[in-house]
Amino acid sequence: MEGLNELNEYIDRNLDRFIEDLKLLCRQPSVSAQNKGIDECVSVLEKLMENAGIDVKIFEVKDGNPIVFGELKNKNAKECLGFYNHYDVQPPEPLEKWDSPPFKPEIREGKLYARGVSDNKGNIVARLEAVKAYMDVYGEVPVNLKFFVEGEEEIGSPHLERFVRENMELLRADGYIWEGDGVDSEGRPVVSLGAKGILYVEFKAKGPKTDVHSSRAPLVPNPAWRLVWMLSTFKGPDEKIKIPGWYDEVVPPSEKDLQLLREAPFDEEADKRELGLKEYLLGLTGVESQKALRFSPTCNICGFSAGYTGPGSKTVLPAEASVKVDFRLVEAQKPDLLFERLKDHLKRNGFGDITVTRHGGYEPARTPADDPFAIRVIKTAEKVYGLKPVVWPTMAGTSPIYVVKNMMGIPVASAGGVGYPGALVHAPNENIRIKDYSNSIKYVAALIHSYRENP
Amino acid sequence: MEGLNELNEYIDRNLDRFIEDLKLLCRQPSVSAQNKGIDECVSVLEKLMENAGIDVKIFEVKDGNPIVFGELKNKNAKECLGFYNHYDVQPPEPLEKWDSPPFKPEIREGKLYARGVSDNKGNIVARLEAVKAYMDVYGEVPVNLKFFVEGEEEIGSPHLERFVRENMELLRADGYIWEGDGVDSEGRPVVSLGAKGILYVEFKAKGPKTDVHSSRAPLVPNPAWRLVWMLSTFKGPDEKIKIPGWYDEVVPPSEKDLQLLREAPFDEEADKRELGLKEYLLGLTGVESQKALRFSPTCNICGFSAGYTGPGSKTVLPAEASVKVDFRLVEAQKPDLLFERLKDHLKRNGFGDITVTRHGGYEPARTPADDPFAIRVIKTAEKVYGLKPVVWPTMAGTSPIYVVKNMMGIPVASAGGVGYPGALVHAPNENIRIKDYSNSIKYVAALIHSYRENP
Repeated sequence: MEGLNELNEYIDRNLDRFIEDLKLLCRQPSVSAQNKGIDECVSVLEKLMENAGIDVKIFEVKDGNPIVFGELKNKNAKECLGFYNHYDVQPPEPLEKWDSPPFKPEIREGKLYARGVSDNKGNIVARLEAVKAYMDVYGEVPVNLKFFVEGEEEIGSPHLERFVRENMELLRADGYIWEGDGVDSEGRPVVSLGAKGILYVEFKAKGPKTDVHSSRAPLVPNPAWRLVWMLSTFKGPDEKIKIPGWYDEVVPPSEKDLQLLREAPFDEEADKRELGLKEYLLGLTGVESQKALRFSPTCNICGFSAGYTGPGSKTVLPAEASVKVDFRLVEAQKPDLLFERLKDHLKRNGFGDITVTRHGGYEPARTPADDPFAIRVIKTAEKVYGLKPVVWPTMAGTSPIYVVKNMMGIPVASAGGVGYPGALVHAPNENIRIKDYSNSIKYVAALIHSYRENP
Repeated sequence: MEGLNELNEYIDRNLDRFIEDLKLLCRQPSVSAQNKGIDECVSVLEKLMENAGIDVKIFEVKDGNPIVFGELKNKNAKECLGFYNHYDVQPPEPLEKWDSPPFKPEIREGKLYARGVSDNKGNIVARLEAVKAYMDVYGEVPVNLKFFVEGEEEIGSPHLERFVRENMELLRADGYIWEGDGVDSEGRPVVSLGAKGILYVEFKAKGPKTDVHSSRAPLVPNPAWRLVWMLSTFKGPDEKIKIPGWYDEVVPPSEKDLQLLREAPFDEEADKRELGLKEYLLGLTGVESQKALRFSPTCNICGFSAGYTGPGSKTVLPAEASVKVDFRLVEAQKPDLLFERLKDHLKRNGFGDITVTRHGGYEPARTPADDPFAIRVIKTAEKVYGLKPVVWPTMAGTSPIYVVKNMMGIPVASAGGVGYPGALVHAPNENIRIKDYSNSIKYVAALIHSYRENP
């Protein structure tokens, strides 16, 4: 790409300043789960965005954390590129496991350590620095830019969907870059084109008023048994979900998706070693295992609690039992609809007494690999990193991409982020490599530049 | 019964002294679960027995609590009557819920409060006082007496079976009176002629080396699911145990047993109210519910533990899961044999990876209601209490009666004890009513006397 050298040189020259900006944001705790430092973080972020020439607007969210929205316009530009990020971070605990304090960013051996530096503050600031670099080098951006930064991602984005519904015009763009991703163990850039959805449900069964002696078992319903029987109607050892209609909407992977899986490098043996498994579930291997991982709906028991669980034996019939289940959803499955089918299934099978509580839910969302926006994102990655990107048609995990992709019909991709396999995201000693930070700024600058050449 | 008046008068005259003896034993903590005060309690008990003219022998138990054995012989007596008791008690905690300290026996409104006063020290001392009364009134007992007192009942009697196997001649008698029982809410004497057995098993399943993100569910076996599927092969909502061969040895209740159930008073509505149930499991009522309670093998989940069980949601696939199950056994079921069948069942159904740990086990044991010893016990109860006894062919709970009934072939019954429905056994403010204590002494004296009239 013509003109990239000048941008890259500018970025290299100004890297120390860019690192200081990132440290500034990392120094400000913003722990959504603990409601710590949110407003202060919003102020710091607002200033950083203004310094990049971006118009900023803060949206207060009732009973939630503010959404920071930024815009940089070029009235001659026809297209608009959006960026989604979040300024909130995971709690830093356990503090004693950090080699330097989580909110005192410190560079050691080419890595910057801080809570949130990878997830997701490094990506926020890299994007802002790319804008600054672009404006300093070219005086204007060839594409309108929008920055959509929320503060509740780490607690499940409870207000995101409503905000999007109420602000579609504000948020409209021709493509969104999501949180970030990064590079794999070989330095190859990773591009993700989608995420699974999720439906998280807690089930509670009641037995006698209080725990009773287990000799009463012939006469007293045992809530743990009721949950076991209920669960056994959800899924058997063949891993197929038995709730009627569960797969009705499922869109299977396309030939292109399968081709991407075949091309994506994956060290199966190392993964199994790390998990301590001799083999994957159902003996899956190779591309079949990746297909299952990324394209299978799941029904997973996250936790089961009932009765006496201490050492030795106690003969008790518990008063209540509960189980938490997360259902990951694949393309076109709808959490609301499936939740209704789940409740119907319970009623029809005599489990109407079991209390069902839903803890949020996301739709799955995917952008096809042959979408022009996806092609632009992938091509730019290959140019900036000089290596063929690893393109995942979808992650196995979940992200609220659907609010943009499904609700607004805008293609979404995640690429050019600061992440790498040793980032220790959500864990003590979270870090990024300075070289990845620099590459990330260059990636975003190059992506903006791509609209100049190919508007 | 001729001659009982004299005995009863003696007992009434000496009741204060008998209460002091009981207080003495209750003052001495003997908490087997906490290994507290055991040897001191043995010494107090030894003295009380010697005071009643009984020859005492203390048997040390390797890695366990001593067994106290006592004997009172009459060389002209043809028969021998045995008594089983235990001197250990449940832990007194929570201490703050006691109105007076658990090891400072106190009388309030005709009740004596202390940990262990009902379970089982009141019965021990009542039996010793009955002997004392009998000897003082008659100068000799008309039947040989044996006292078999262990110190580990509250922790599952782990050494009892071995002791019995190694000391059968020492322990031999023509009938044993078990722990005690007592009277029901209407003051009717309760006689129990058996107990269920038990097989307590803990199952552990392993998944990945550590908890992992639940997005890995399509490839990583979930140990909670494995236990759910295993459990669902044990029992379905019809409450029938599906493990092959589980019912093969079961002896159904006899016509006499059913007749006893029909005669036994039972306030079903009050019981359901207390349990907070609209109806019993499977809609059972009346004698059918008592039949199920006392004659059905059970498979009860005592506890289930896996993954995240705190508030809200966490998307985790747990590294391990465990479940504790108690199987109550009915007449002729053998815990050893059933444990083997259970393990076979696991292997045959693909659950060979699940770790199985057995926590003890008792055989069920019953004495037929038409056994001469049972008839003697029941008749004596009717004479002493002046009311028709409530005779349960078996308890729904478990007691190590089998060591005497099954291993030695000696009939066993529980009757004439100090218990009553408000005794708060195993709970704070455990207590007995003084009048029940007095009746209990009179019952044992009358039972001894029955051998004089009907040797």
